[in-house]
Amino acid sequence: MSEQNKVSLPVIKRLPKYYRYISTMQKNGVVKVSSSELARIMGTTASQVRQDFNCFGGFGQQGIGYNVNVLLEEISRLLFSENKLDTILIGTGRLGRAISGYLTAEAQGYRLIGVFDKAKDEIGQTICGTQIRDVRELEAFCKKNRPQVAVLCVPSQSARELAPVLVELGIQGFWNFSHYDLSVDYDNIIVENVHLSDRLMSLGYRVRNNISKL
Amino acid sequence: MSEQNKVSLPVIKRLPKYYRYISTMQKNGVVKVSSSELARIMGTTASQVRQDFNCFGGFGQQGIGYNVNVLLEEISRLLFSENKLDTILIGTGRLGRAISGYLTAEAQGYRLIGVFDKAKDEIGQTICGTQIRDVRELEAFCKKNRPQVAVLCVPSQSARELAPVLVELGIQGFWNFSHYDLSVDYDNIIVENVHLSDRLMSLGYRVRNNISKL
Repeated sequence: MSEQNKVSLPVIKRLPKYYRYISTMQKNGVVKVSSSELARIMGTTASQVRQDFNCFGGFGQQGIGYNVNVLLEEISRLLFSENKLDTILIGTGRLGRAISGYLTAEAQGYRLIGVFDKAKDEIGQTICGTQIRDVRELEAFCKKNRPQVAVLCVPSQSARELAPVLVELGIQGFWNFSHYDLSVDYDNIIVENVHLSDRLMSLGYRVRNNISKL
Repeated sequence: MSEQNKVSLPVIKRLPKYYRYISTMQKNGVVKVSSSELARIMGTTASQVRQDFNCFGGFGQQGIGYNVNVLLEEISRLLFSENKLDTILIGTGRLGRAISGYLTAEAQGYRLIGVFDKAKDEIGQTICGTQIRDVRELEAFCKKNRPQVAVLCVPSQSARELAPVLVELGIQGFWNFSHYDLSVDYDNIIVENVHLSDRLMSLGYRVRNNISKL
């Protein structure tokens, strides 16, 4: 735990990228990888890679390269705990349904225990094996089941209204697809924002002005 | 155009965030906003805000604050052209369907002109008013209709195989939901990656280790 306290947010954000690239290497039968090869793929420097890994105890010897299996095992241990995070999802529109499916079928480390919506014709339906509940049951449900993570697939105004309620109910982490950025108003909660529209706007601007890498 | 050549990628990536916050201000009836107020919401400095806006000619007077309507109009003009970008989407699984809906109903500046999949039982179905085509028709379709943007909602191996084909067919920008990062292999194309799993991994790590802001 003491080592983890030193780990900065940029390093944490790079861990999944390391995980992805090193998984691919393992699938392709690669056994050893140097920090400079990793740096090339990650778009960083060898020294940065070694620094990143040193935050977690080093992951094996430098100089002779890292063992791909060991590296993947160590990074997996950091990223996925055996104790899955109990998770609820609010908003079962098209995006909410896609994300429910994703959480259930593909995401490691999460257990979707409840989905909620306010639309009468959604409530009672089943998505990914979970029955959609009335959002008015949210409080009772959370008090009983104590979810740790909430996924918000609702419009920004609903997210703004739900945030204080969910924080009060003990939600520690948000995966936020709404336009409302909770982290502005709540300092101590953990938020990962996915602003789909932001990415599309940047993409459009860059395509129209032909800006690839600068 | 000459001003736009000076604009760096970080500034472009901040534009949508400005757009979101300033839209909300306009909806809330705010008329004037200072660079320091914008800085607070954006999590940056007033000087950075002024610098960003100066890349595009300034957007009005400093000192007395920016006019919210003018600001929004100017930023919209930068982000959304009247000429919509012709767009294709490949992969009509759960995520692909959600993203098709999003592109059709909510995204400004894009026109979804074709959706493709390789699954026999998907081909011929209609999503968001567009019939799903066999991915084998991709080349003929692109030669005829010249789409500028491709959205990839396919697994990483398929994305890796499709990328060179699509680049060759003239696709200029990719909205990439696969784990394969095209920008590593193609220097001159424009890519916005949405790595859903990366965000979930970071979130899980942060919740388990209680790391909000550092």
